[in-house]
Parts: sequence; structure tokens; C-alpha cells
Amino acid sequence: MSKTAFNTVSIIRKKRDGEELTKKEIKHLIDAYTEDKIPDYQMSAFLMASFLKGLNASEAAALTESMLHSGIVVDLSETPGIKVDKHSTGGVGDKLSLILAPIVAACGVPVPMISGRGLGHTGGTLDKLESIPGFTVDVTLERYKEILKKQNLVLVGQTEEIAPADKRLYALRDVTATVESIPLIAGSIMSKKLAEGIDALVLDVKFGSGAFMKNVEQATKLAETLVGIGEQFGKETIAYLTNMEQPLGNAVGNWLEVKESIDCLNGGGPDDVMEITHLLAGTMIYLGKKASTIEEGIEKSKKSVTDGSAIQKWIDIVEEQGGDVGVIKNPASYPPADFMEPVKAKRSGIISEMDAFAMGMVSVELGAGRRAKEDAVDPRAGFILHKKIGDFVKENETLATLHTNNNSMLSSAKAGMEKAVTISKSKPSIQKQIAYKVDKKGVHKYDA
Amino acid sequence: MSKTAFNTVSIIRKKRDGEELTKKEIKHLIDAYTEDKIPDYQMSAFLMASFLKGLNASEAAALTESMLHSGIVVDLSETPGIKVDKHSTGGVGDKLSLILAPIVAACGVPVPMISGRGLGHTGGTLDKLESIPGFTVDVTLERYKEILKKQNLVLVGQTEEIAPADKRLYALRDVTATVESIPLIAGSIMSKKLAEGIDALVLDVKFGSGAFMKNVEQATKLAETLVGIGEQFGKETIAYLTNMEQPLGNAVGNWLEVKESIDCLNGGGPDDVMEITHLLAGTMIYLGKKASTIEEGIEKSKKSVTDGSAIQKWIDIVEEQGGDVGVIKNPASYPPADFMEPVKAKRSGIISEMDAFAMGMVSVELGAGRRAKEDAVDPRAGFILHKKIGDFVKENETLATLHTNNNSMLSSAKAGMEKAVTISKSKPSIQKQIAYKVDKKGVHKYDA
Repeated sequence: MSKTAFNTVSIIRKKRDGEELTKKEIKHLIDAYTEDKIPDYQMSAFLMASFLKGLNASEAAALTESMLHSGIVVDLSETPGIKVDKHSTGGVGDKLSLILAPIVAACGVPVPMISGRGLGHTGGTLDKLESIPGFTVDVTLERYKEILKKQNLVLVGQTEEIAPADKRLYALRDVTATVESIPLIAGSIMSKKLAEGIDALVLDVKFGSGAFMKNVEQATKLAETLVGIGEQFGKETIAYLTNMEQPLGNAVGNWLEVKESIDCLNGGGPDDVMEITHLLAGTMIYLGKKASTIEEGIEKSKKSVTDGSAIQKWIDIVEEQGGDVGVIKNPASYPPADFMEPVKAKRSGIISEMDAFAMGMVSVELGAGRRAKEDAVDPRAGFILHKKIGDFVKENETLATLHTNNNSMLSSAKAGMEKAVTISKSKPSIQKQIAYKVDKKGVHKYDA
Repeated sequence: MSKTAFNTVSIIRKKRDGEELTKKEIKHLIDAYTEDKIPDYQMSAFLMASFLKGLNASEAAALTESMLHSGIVVDLSETPGIKVDKHSTGGVGDKLSLILAPIVAACGVPVPMISGRGLGHTGGTLDKLESIPGFTVDVTLERYKEILKKQNLVLVGQTEEIAPADKRLYALRDVTATVESIPLIAGSIMSKKLAEGIDALVLDVKFGSGAFMKNVEQATKLAETLVGIGEQFGKETIAYLTNMEQPLGNAVGNWLEVKESIDCLNGGGPDDVMEITHLLAGTMIYLGKKASTIEEGIEKSKKSVTDGSAIQKWIDIVEEQGGDVGVIKNPASYPPADFMEPVKAKRSGIISEMDAFAMGMVSVELGAGRRAKEDAVDPRAGFILHKKIGDFVKENETLATLHTNNNSMLSSAKAGMEKAVTISKSKPSIQKQIAYKVDKKGVHKYDA
């Protein structure tokens, strides 16, 4: 067993008994684990004790700091301006990063964005970017800084140097049923974001069937923890709690979502997507001090779409990172999936429910997502929703079109999609997309 | 990650969320762990979840059964009669096995006793037996059966074939702060005892500062769990809750305790030791159907001491297992420790407290016990108490004599012993040695 200045078993016992750990004790655990001086079986016992007994704000901050300093904190001082990023806790059809990143960069705020891959029912920004032929998300830290300096924007994956302790801990949590813990989630998110070299952060914390946080209370607690950590590190952080009862927008699937994002940047795109995009982008522009209020930031965000500067920034970054600009300029030139299958309404009525979680699992079945980390994703797979909650449908009208290259999964995916849609007689109450704003002053009901 | 019919992460999650596991789920965990199909880090997460969320009676029985069947269950049918063993949860100065095993065997009840080693503040029966020159506790299962058949008694250590899952789990619990869980303790004890081939069992569950269970409520819960498991396996099980506020008897240390045991078998020995010994032995004789009541069993136990049959059985088993009968017949011939140091009373008064835990740690310091499993023990180290709680002492009167071969630890051990003894002005209330009896009918206040 490990001989260290601290007694690992005593620290596990302390947390098991619900006591508060000191910053030094948490630092010992993370440092020694990173250096392979604490075995996985002790760390997993600690994680389960933390899951069940909780970590308070100071402990969560200490955990974040230790994970942050397990790797390097990128110095982005070569790029002038206040660097602002956005992080989403993940949802179905959540392509907002692809739209708001070029918008914010076009408005003069540098956006250093390090994203992840999809797992389970949710997609990941990296998989979406990689559906663009040639687009590379694996770059060195030097190149990361260079792209940001040149484009005011960079869209890449996590490098080995960024919070390596988080990478190992996340893999361990995944196989020990210790993922869904608010302080552990918060520490994981914030250690990576702080390591990117940001000055401020906007968070999109999703709740509902398609989100990790199923109810708004849990999501609010996570948002408060995230904002608290951000502020403790001197980075202004604003979070929004947004509804993930149904997929965001109409497209779900990697290329299909890139295509929808291009529509959005060209001034089209679904209203629900654009409402949240402009709010998040406007907040980023405000935090980057290119607007004196969030409202002014939203106006600037909208203007960057209408004046074409946002789509131009998107074309520039795709080109910079090796992507095929041809498919961005002419999305119709992208090869479609081999099989396209309509899903039709069984009866007439009004759509009252669209189970986002179930639909996310349908997209996995079609090939757009991963069941396990090792799985490959199909860039062309996914589905397009032609109707959303509140829409009237006639019997046999097409609700959605499934896209896949794997014909054998079609009938099961179709059945899954049918089951995920509820058609009722009466009009459902449509929930607000944005429920709360959380900042350093607390939780505020959001009234647009 | 392991591909098994059951999803290990789902089972961990279920327990994490406080749900009851099925017998099949628990069997999967233990079987797959024994076959190295579940890694330590998943098992330790499960252990911490079980520690914090608990395992109910059915789960504890399923855990016991799975651990029991991870190895073989010994068939002792070659030896006629009802085989009865005794297990103690461990204390300071607890040498009862050495006295009651020959008594019960001498009374015609076969005693197949598999014991463990000491760790931390408590001693272990194997270490005590091994202080007898030549005595071997490592035997094959064939030899185990042979000794029992010949002597009606066998005193050995755990073999590889007995509950191997428990051995691995215990080692993992030790380094993950998951030892002190009642169902996990109960499963560990009962899987080993049931594997020995017993028909009935007597348990000595200790409470107080020198015991693992610090209060009588916890100890009662453990006793009920143990009795419940025993009865579920069709083995009549009776437990007594006994007080471990001060060390048992006067001797603490391996050979020193063997010597005290010989005194007891020769009709001497401290009253506290003999009170519990006769109760436990009498209960074993009753369970072995060599007495129609426990009271009659106690009378037979006492008679075996006065008629010399118990000490003769002790001499026989020592000889059978390779031990030097000379030191049993003439304990004075055993070489004493190199250093013997008196600990004296700082003031006159009445002894009101003797912290058994602290005294256990003093014995470790003197060389009689282990801090870590790899440590060697010194057979000659330990101490003799000349006074116990309730005794009057004069200033400078000798309270105890420390025995050690490690001169360098003497002053610190002496200070520890002085601190462990409280001398007061007024007479303390002396607690009853035996508090409760627990059997299949429930918990009964014990009135001797």
C-alpha cells in the first residue's frame, strides 16, 4: 500500500463519515492518484463516499483546483481581449456551439473552445465538427493558441496536457456508478474549462428527459455549484437553465446538425435554436466587454447573422482547421445517408410530448451516437423532425425522417421514434425554453 | 470492461440508490469477482455503497452464501457428533478459545476451530497458538479432518480452500475504509464459520472501548445479523454480548495469554475469564447435545476443569499439532522477555477506568501485535495487569508489568499504559460482564 504523508484510508473514512475534507487532503488524493500512488480501488471508494455524502462548495472548489493543476493552464495572453467560452451539460440536438462560437468571435470576443465527444443519448461537438470532411479537432497546444490568435476562435478536442486527472477520474466514475454527482460533475467541467485559458464562461445547464439532470431543482443546484466555482477562481460565470423536454431544433445527428447550424448562420434555422443561441452568444459578448448589457450583446449577435460576418467566421474557421469549405457553402453537395425512412403519425391530433431521451437513443441506434466510448459514429446518420410539440398533425402525415446507413436497425428505430411521440386531442401547455439565470448574485427567474 | 450476463455498473448503481439487490445479483458480483471478471475498483465502489446504504437480512444472507460457496464447505461427517465452534468478534486479552476449546472437546462435543491472526489493538488465536514452540496451525484440509476425528478438537488457520472470496474482499475493505459495516462483517464471519463444517455456533460479540463495536446497540445489531444468518443456514446459533471496557483477565500478549489459559485449565485463572469461558463452553456443550440445558453445560464445563480432563485435552492437542508439551506442563520453563518494567500508580485511589483500546495499542508497541498484516509478532511481548477496575491502589504500587524485547519502545509504552488507567477517589459502578443473549427467539437481557 502507498506510503504517503497523508493516510489515504483515513481520508476515505472521513468522507465516508460525512466530514468535510481539507484542501490539503483533497489535493493529496488527486495528486497521488495522478502520480499512480493511489490505486483505482481506493479512488473509487472515495468517489462513492463523495457521491453519497456530498462535497460542499469549498471541497468542490478544492477538487476543481487539484484537477486543474494536474495539467497545464493554457496561457492565451498572445490573443488580446477577454476570452469567453460556453459549456453545455449536453442534450439531444444541441448544436448551439457550432452557431454561437462563430457569432461571438465575429463580434470581437475571442472564443477558445475545447469540446468533448458524444456518449449515450447525447451528441458531442467534436463528432459534429468531424462530420465536415477534413476538419481536424486534434491539435497541439501551440497550434491551439495560433488558431485562436489568427481567427479569434478555435474548436478542438481535449489534449493530454489539459486536466489529466479529470480524464482518469471520469473513466473511473463511468464504470463505478459515480457519474451523476453534482460536485463531481462540476469539478470535471470546471477543471477543463479553467485549464483552457478562459477569462469568463457561459453555461447552458439543461434539464428534462433529454438532459443528464432530469429535474430543474437538480439542474439549479449544478448551475449554482458551477457558478460558485467559476467565481472562486475569479472568472465571471453566468449559467442559464434551459429545457430539454424535446430535442433542440429539428435536426439530430452529426452532419444533419452541422447543416442546421449553417442554416442558422445564414439567417434561417428553427426559432427554439436561435432563441437560446442569441441569449448565450449575447451573454458571451457582454462578458467579453463588447456590449454593455446582455441585451446589447443579443442585438450584436443577431446583427452578425444578418450582416454575414458570423457565417464568414464559420467558413474561415472550417478552412483554418482543414475542413472542406465546399460542403459549408453548399450543404446539398454532402452525400446523404443510404436509407431514409419516414415516420408517420398514427392518428390526427396535437403533438403533446416528444421524449428527448428516447429520441437520443433512436439516433444512437441509427448510428449517430455511441453506446460505448470505443464505438465509431456515422456522420450521416440521424433524423429530422418535421413536427415539434404543439404542432397539429393529420393521420399518416410525416413526423420525422430517419437517416441511416444501417438498414437492419431501421424498423426498431422507427418503432422507437413512434413510441417517443405522443399525439393528443388537446393542446399541451408549452414550457418556456429558458427557465432561470444563475449568476454570482443568485438564481433569477428568466423573463425574456 | 467485463462482459457478463449481469451489468456490474447497474448493480452498483442499484445499491448506491438504496435499492435491495436480488440473490442472483449478489451471487454475480461475488462469483465474477472471485473469477477476476470484476476489477477491484468496481468492488470497492460496491462495498462503499453497501457500507453507506446497508444490506438487509436477505442481502446479508445472499452475500454470506456466495462467499461461502466461493470455496469448499468441509465435510466433517467422519467425526460423529454435533460439531460446534465459537467465534469472538475480538478484544484485548481475549484468550477464551484456548480455554473453552479443550473443555468442550473434553465434554464430548467435537470442536473444529479455524481462527485468524491479530491486527491493530486486538490479538489473534493463531498468534497465541504459535507462541507455543513447534505448534503448527497450517495444515491441509485432510489433516484438519484427521486431527478432529482423533482429538475431537482441531485449532488451525484458514486454508486457501475456505471462502477465498472473503479473503480478497477483506483485504480490499481494509484499504478502502469499508471494514466497520455490520452486514459485511457478518458475511465475512459467517462464510468462514459455515465453511468449516460446523453444525452449531456460539458467538461472543464484544462491545466497549476495546471492541470493534464501541456501543452495545451496534453490537446487538451485529449479533442479531449473525444469528439470523446462522439460522437461515440451518445452524443453531447463540450469541452473547460481552463487555470489553477493560482487558479480559490479567495477561495481554501471546505467550502470556497461553500461560494464563493454562492456569485457567488447571483450575486457577481470573474470575472474569472463567465466568465467560464457562458460559460459552456450557452453551457449546448444550448445542452439541451433551447437556439438556445451558446450565447443565456450564456444570459439565466446570467439572472438566476440576477432574483434569480439560487440561489433558489441551496437552493432547498441543502434542497432536506439533507443540512443545514441556512448556504447557511447566510454563515457568518458557523464556521470559528480555525487558520487564513495572508501571506504578501515580496516586492512591480506586481504579475507575482501564482503556482497553489504548492498552491494546500498548501491547502492539511492546511487540505483541501488528500494525500491518505483514508485521511479525513477538511471542514473549505483552503485559500483566496486577490490578483491574474497582481495585484499590496505593501511590507507587505496581499496576502492571510490561514485557518486551524492544527496549526502545519501553518509555512510550509505559506512558501509554499510565494514560490508559484512571485512578479516582470514589468507587466506580462495575459493569456486568455479560449483557445480553441473542438467539433465534430474539434479544434477552442476561441474568446469570
